[in-house]
Amino acid sequence: MSFRGNHILSIDQFNRNDIEQLFSVADKLEPFASKEKITRVLEGAILGNMFFEPSTRTRISFGASFNLLGGSVREITEVGSSSLAKGESLADTAQVLSGYSDIIVMRHPENDSVKKFSEASRVPVINGGDGSNEHPSQALLDLYTIRKELSQNDKTIDNLRIALVGDLKYGRAVHSLCKILSKYKDVKLNLISPDELKLPEDLIRQMNDSRVSINQTENLEKGISEVDIIYVTRVQEERFKNKKDANKYRGLLSLNQSIYTANCEPNTVIMHPLPRDSRSDANELDSDLYENPNLAIFRQADNGVVIRMAMFALVLGVEEKIEETSKPVNWKVGLNS
Amino acid sequence: MSFRGNHILSIDQFNRNDIEQLFSVADKLEPFASKEKITRVLEGAILGNMFFEPSTRTRISFGASFNLLGGSVREITEVGSSSLAKGESLADTAQVLSGYSDIIVMRHPENDSVKKFSEASRVPVINGGDGSNEHPSQALLDLYTIRKELSQNDKTIDNLRIALVGDLKYGRAVHSLCKILSKYKDVKLNLISPDELKLPEDLIRQMNDSRVSINQTENLEKGISEVDIIYVTRVQEERFKNKKDANKYRGLLSLNQSIYTANCEPNTVIMHPLPRDSRSDANELDSDLYENPNLAIFRQADNGVVIRMAMFALVLGVEEKIEETSKPVNWKVGLNS
Amino acid sequence: MSFRGNHILSIDQFNRNDIEQLFSVADKLEPFASKEKITRVLEGAILGNMFFEPSTRTRISFGASFNLLGGSVREITEVGSSSLAKGESLADTAQVLSGYSDIIVMRHPENDSVKKFSEASRVPVINGGDGSNEHPSQALLDLYTIRKELSQNDKTIDNLRIALVGDLKYGRAVHSLCKILSKYKDVKLNLISPDELKLPEDLIRQMNDSRVSINQTENLEKGISEVDIIYVTRVQEERFKNKKDANKYRGLLSLNQSIYTANCEPNTVIMHPLPRDSRSDANELDSDLYENPNLAIFRQADNGVVIRMAMFALVLGVEEKIEETSKPVNWKVGLNS
Repeated sequence: MSFRGNHILSIDQFNRNDIEQLFSVADKLEPFASKEKITRVLEGAILGNMFFEPSTRTRISFGASFNLLGGSVREITEVGSSSLAKGESLADTAQVLSGYSDIIVMRHPENDSVKKFSEASRVPVINGGDGSNEHPSQALLDLYTIRKELSQNDKTIDNLRIALVGDLKYGRAVHSLCKILSKYKDVKLNLISPDELKLPEDLIRQMNDSRVSINQTENLEKGISEVDIIYVTRVQEERFKNKKDANKYRGLLSLNQSIYTANCEPNTVIMHPLPRDSRSDANELDSDLYENPNLAIFRQADNGVVIRMAMFALVLGVEEKIEETSKPVNWKVGLNS
Repeated sequence: MSFRGNHILSIDQFNRNDIEQLFSVADKLEPFASKEKITRVLEGAILGNMFFEPSTRTRISFGASFNLLGGSVREITEVGSSSLAKGESLADTAQVLSGYSDIIVMRHPENDSVKKFSEASRVPVINGGDGSNEHPSQALLDLYTIRKELSQNDKTIDNLRIALVGDLKYGRAVHSLCKILSKYKDVKLNLISPDELKLPEDLIRQMNDSRVSINQTENLEKGISEVDIIYVTRVQEERFKNKKDANKYRGLLSLNQSIYTANCEPNTVIMHPLPRDSRSDANELDSDLYENPNLAIFRQADNGVVIRMAMFALVLGVEEKIEETSKPVNWKVGLNS
Repeated sequence: MSFRGNHILSIDQFNRNDIEQLFSVADKLEPFASKEKITRVLEGAILGNMFFEPSTRTRISFGASFNLLGGSVREITEVGSSSLAKGESLADTAQVLSGYSDIIVMRHPENDSVKKFSEASRVPVINGGDGSNEHPSQALLDLYTIRKELSQNDKTIDNLRIALVGDLKYGRAVHSLCKILSKYKDVKLNLISPDELKLPEDLIRQMNDSRVSINQTENLEKGISEVDIIYVTRVQEERFKNKKDANKYRGLLSLNQSIYTANCEPNTVIMHPLPRDSRSDANELDSDLYENPNLAIFRQADNGVVIRMAMFALVLGVEEKIEETSKPVNWKVGLNS
């Protein structure tokens, strides 16, 4: 596909070339995200940031990315305030809202809702998460993080060895990451989860078909040795029928510095889609990992900004105009040291 | 009246000259709304978009219109977060909020609240809907739509033949439209509603006084023949004492393509203030009308943007400065074809 | 301290020189707040306006101030939409959100939460109110108002005579004002409150140590004679165990024009942190004071904008660059007279 003028609904749309193009634009946007310079390339453009399900982090990340390109943001932050409650169809909502914006990011609790919405929209729509279905910008920023972290040790996504840890049954981020990894060569995957929270069978089959090498285990120590990346996830409490069921699994797979030191190769990178559950009975990633330079979870969140900037730039076709509109930064960046 | 530096509280403020002036500025703003170019004429100005009652569509439309002129938007989206709950008077709220903005749009559930607010405000206030009372930007965008749609068949608002369909008792949009139409010559009005949801008597009297010709009927087929415009409305469920009462009337007056073909003159335009209720038991406008080029409901919503831009431009007195500050658009507009 | 690149968490950080520097930048920003000209000095910068507790007035004031400097604003308006609910630590939230913004304003219902947050943030954090603890921008705008109002009568903060009226026990604004006043010389303080709502003992001790002269009384008339400033506060209903307890004190200390005329020196200035409770059983400041030119409560709210602009400008180190980036205002400011 070409990004220009198209919806971004699923990572299935992308081949390796698309992904490489996106990552290369993201690389060029790094100095703008880190405030070495600013751009106003989207001055006058409006993002419709339509969140029909709460998600502070993703909402702010998309909005900030659009602001960093010079555009304005109009927002919906809750389904209660919408006309859907008055019997309006998603198609009508899409027709109307697309008259107010140049591009729309939409999150919605129902699977496939964003696709339906996009079919009636007159402007490009980016899926910001539709139920348990897709969340393509998360998968792309995860892969971008893997590529960036590995490159420091001269490794590539081809030949990647990665451990996925935690709730692999309900974790949407993990599912999308698996799909995107299956586009690469010689990927070795260690799936570490309680038996009841294993990766869905159809996804395992799909990855086998793509020649991903898969090992499944319930043993954290064994699973995280001999990998380049450990990708930990939260128990998706909200997807369980009741909290008690979820509580059974919280805290079962908890990584801390001593387990890391005892089992991992040097420079094994730790990732997490966040939020991580830091309550003592869950504690997926212990706070003693804070000092570990391979804890990449906040660099990963930061990468969301350049990836989303790159998505906007490519869909709106301004990726070649960013440099020429750049300006210096007036203010002091960051904290006093 | 002149718009410059004044509140916009009611359509009663306007005479035909005012309306013509507004529409002529709106015409000039079309290329900015359709992204042929951008303007930054309100760079540095702040809109206080104060919604003390939820209304996604109107809120986003006003906000986007202000962004399109180059201004910034600060928002209130719910009464719960306001100081009114702590016993503050509307006058105090107005004094304080008007110190934070250059112009205010206010929606509030109580009739006449916006007027009270405006009396203490130090900046112009635009009524974004006060209870069942007024919603002037809706009436203006409706009339602008009628004018624009008719002009394609060389017709004018003078001599207009229009059918109003549905809940004419509670529909605020319909009431305001009636008032504004009474400023024009030789308007013929077909009122189509269940007997219990008829247009209020005082409004009918007022229109008779202005020499509007009025027919009342419960028969959809009869009412929509020999008109230029069919204006359909939703049953205003939220204004009924209980839902059951409202349900009696839902679905009674439902327009679809075959009724349209059998009864309407060619090019009869279909309008609706939206949201329309598309649940099967209501279905005011059937989805088979989607292909009908005379279905103007989304063009009508789009017109809200230029009308609101024109209101801002005139009240803030920048209508002559827009062209000189215009710039080209950097990005690809709309979807790939 | 220097403001540049630092958090603003407490008024205890500041000495008189800091305060003078802030006020002198605020003075320079007045023409921008009153729209004699505009500045775009923070073009490209993003404020994370993070309100984990509702506060319309403070939220909009900070947001508008940042917009007036040319920056963009991304917002959180309710704790419900945050990841804290999923067990995320404040430190993680800070790490992530500081990757989306150049500066953060945070309000939170828990004491010391903003400090904890700031320790993990990678950008400067301004305390927008943490529980009953601190709200430094309110104290600074109060003091700025006192200085400005007094200067018209050639008085200074040194030698100030001020009456604090109302709920002195729970009023956070009053506590902070006391602390900041204790940095000045020869301040005379009349504390007027019901016995049960007296200023906390430790604060009185602290002020005595700073040689502030203190009188306590329950008698409004006596307390407001021979002062330069009367600072009235609302009964902080929400801090009482039940509403009935609060109701006992509402309306006890109510100032109106005739009490003012009978007891006050000419030009005694009336202040209030707002919102004031205008319900008839409270009525802290009667509406007949509206015409009194010494009622400074709305000028006080307005001063919040320049003070917050000055805080942003100093922390981000652009205070010297504002003038050089200034532009003329295109639009008509204020209402038609």
